[in-house]
Amino acid sequence: LVLEEGGPRFEPNYPDPSPDGEALIRLSIGGICATDLELVAGYMDFEGVLGHEWVGVVEASPDPDWIGARVVGDINCPCRRCATCIAGRSNHCPHRSVLGILGRDGVFADQLRLPLDCLHRVPDAVTDEAAVFVEPLAAACRILQQIAVRATDRVLVLGVGRLGQLCARVLALTGAEVYASSRNPARLAMLPNNIEPLGERGWGAERFDIVVDCTGSVAGLELATGAVRPGGTIVLKTTVHEGKAPNPTPWVVDEITVVGSRCGPFPEALEYLEEGLVDPTPLITARFPLESGVLALATAAEREHVKVLLDPSLEESA
Amino acid sequence: LVLEEGGPRFEPNYPDPSPDGEALIRLSIGGICATDLELVAGYMDFEGVLGHEWVGVVEASPDPDWIGARVVGDINCPCRRCATCIAGRSNHCPHRSVLGILGRDGVFADQLRLPLDCLHRVPDAVTDEAAVFVEPLAAACRILQQIAVRATDRVLVLGVGRLGQLCARVLALTGAEVYASSRNPARLAMLPNNIEPLGERGWGAERFDIVVDCTGSVAGLELATGAVRPGGTIVLKTTVHEGKAPNPTPWVVDEITVVGSRCGPFPEALEYLEEGLVDPTPLITARFPLESGVLALATAAEREHVKVLLDPSLEESA
Repeated sequence: LVLEEGGPRFEPNYPDPSPDGEALIRLSIGGICATDLELVAGYMDFEGVLGHEWVGVVEASPDPDWIGARVVGDINCPCRRCATCIAGRSNHCPHRSVLGILGRDGVFADQLRLPLDCLHRVPDAVTDEAAVFVEPLAAACRILQQIAVRATDRVLVLGVGRLGQLCARVLALTGAEVYASSRNPARLAMLPNNIEPLGERGWGAERFDIVVDCTGSVAGLELATGAVRPGGTIVLKTTVHEGKAPNPTPWVVDEITVVGSRCGPFPEALEYLEEGLVDPTPLITARFPLESGVLALATAAEREHVKVLLDPSLEESA
Repeated sequence: LVLEEGGPRFEPNYPDPSPDGEALIRLSIGGICATDLELVAGYMDFEGVLGHEWVGVVEASPDPDWIGARVVGDINCPCRRCATCIAGRSNHCPHRSVLGILGRDGVFADQLRLPLDCLHRVPDAVTDEAAVFVEPLAAACRILQQIAVRATDRVLVLGVGRLGQLCARVLALTGAEVYASSRNPARLAMLPNNIEPLGERGWGAERFDIVVDCTGSVAGLELATGAVRPGGTIVLKTTVHEGKAPNPTPWVVDEITVVGSRCGPFPEALEYLEEGLVDPTPLITARFPLESGVLALATAAEREHVKVLLDPSLEESA
């Protein structure tokens, strides 16, 4: 058997599916996340440009259809060829780079690069100020991909910082009764009317079907263990790089499920914004030009701030 | 409107669904479990007769159909009236008593009492020596009620003591590739041919879809965290009353699910035994008369023993 040139052939080495298949994008707005603050403190030993929450406009692309498009983008850039990717778990690709977090420069710059297959067009009805929340909003939507939330469930969100605010809003869309707890009254005051604010440990002896830990503190998992009902679910949304989890015996005796949850689906997040089901823009508490990035990071670390934005258009007026 | 006597009526106070609705059962064989050893060490502050693994014959019953029946029984005795019971989670009834563990005398005695609605008849094809394993075998079956195990999954069972041996056997029935790890070669040698034995950390850098922690050690959860693949599931089967769980950041970043798992379904366990799909009897390493209960407990605590039985019929020959 001889295969003729130009006909069917074997290709033992998979070609790179996107050789130079990356778009060059001009940043419209960037957002600062708790992970950025952790990276500055040494997490992941990351070296490079920070930033993974963003909205921008495509300036150059191997596919000209994308040029001029207003876009957001998945931060995980998987190889799409390995067994993990083929099994449908590309967010966990062991060869992935992660925008502004692992092996890839982020968005706190005039321009950024990202593979075309990570991009999502932003609908006209979604402003830049809303679109910059797509990445953390998608992370909140991830919960609904992982666990079933019933309209009869009672849900407690622990911690209403950047991510907790979005998780509570997304969970409330299910019709579940959502409570959110914080020791910060100003953050509780930002919650919309369909979420019940509670002070720290304000639930007393009550127990919840689902508890979502967004505290960013190792104490959160212990609080969650005390607040979830037997047979209930704890969702871990925030990472803590020091300290240990509590003794796991109550998880066995009460058959608790603990679900680690990270990045989520951009299409759902964009649809929530387009349909006006979630409005994250009241969470914006400050906005800085790019050249004031260090001040912006310091501001984001202050307790009275929630979402701090970096906006290159402010540079002109600065 | 007047309701006539003997016709439809209101009963504002629920009557006890089983007033004196308990059977008196003569013990045929009892089994010693790691929990018994923990109770002796002070767990649960339990006072009373030990023992919750058993098979026996009904001697007295409010329903005469049960008299003479060879039975095993659910160890959780729920109220069947509270919101938790009505929601279908009676194993977590906050008012429950638990045979030989919480507020109810156990089985290491000539006779025991249990509500009729906890009893299950033992099929003729199942010997007493097999039936005494129904309770821990049901606990192993619980895993299959809680998580989906696919024939393509690779599963690692950590620790092959009393419960790990049974979990590995049940998981292998799914067609999954099951590995079991222990530092005890004698226990690894007890595994049937469809389970791959591994020494301690014998899996190297390999990762598993599901890791079942049956180590009874707080180190088990840390080992499991290192052995499970991103997006995979850790099942916690054994309790540890001291020590803390590892830092939970890998559970978030790799989206691990940790499932606490306790008591399980007796009908499945009885069916596995009746159909010969699981044979637990090679795990029996010693058998004592009831009057040697203290020696039996001490023997069960020795590393070379797996399942130690208490057999009242031996008293006659003692």
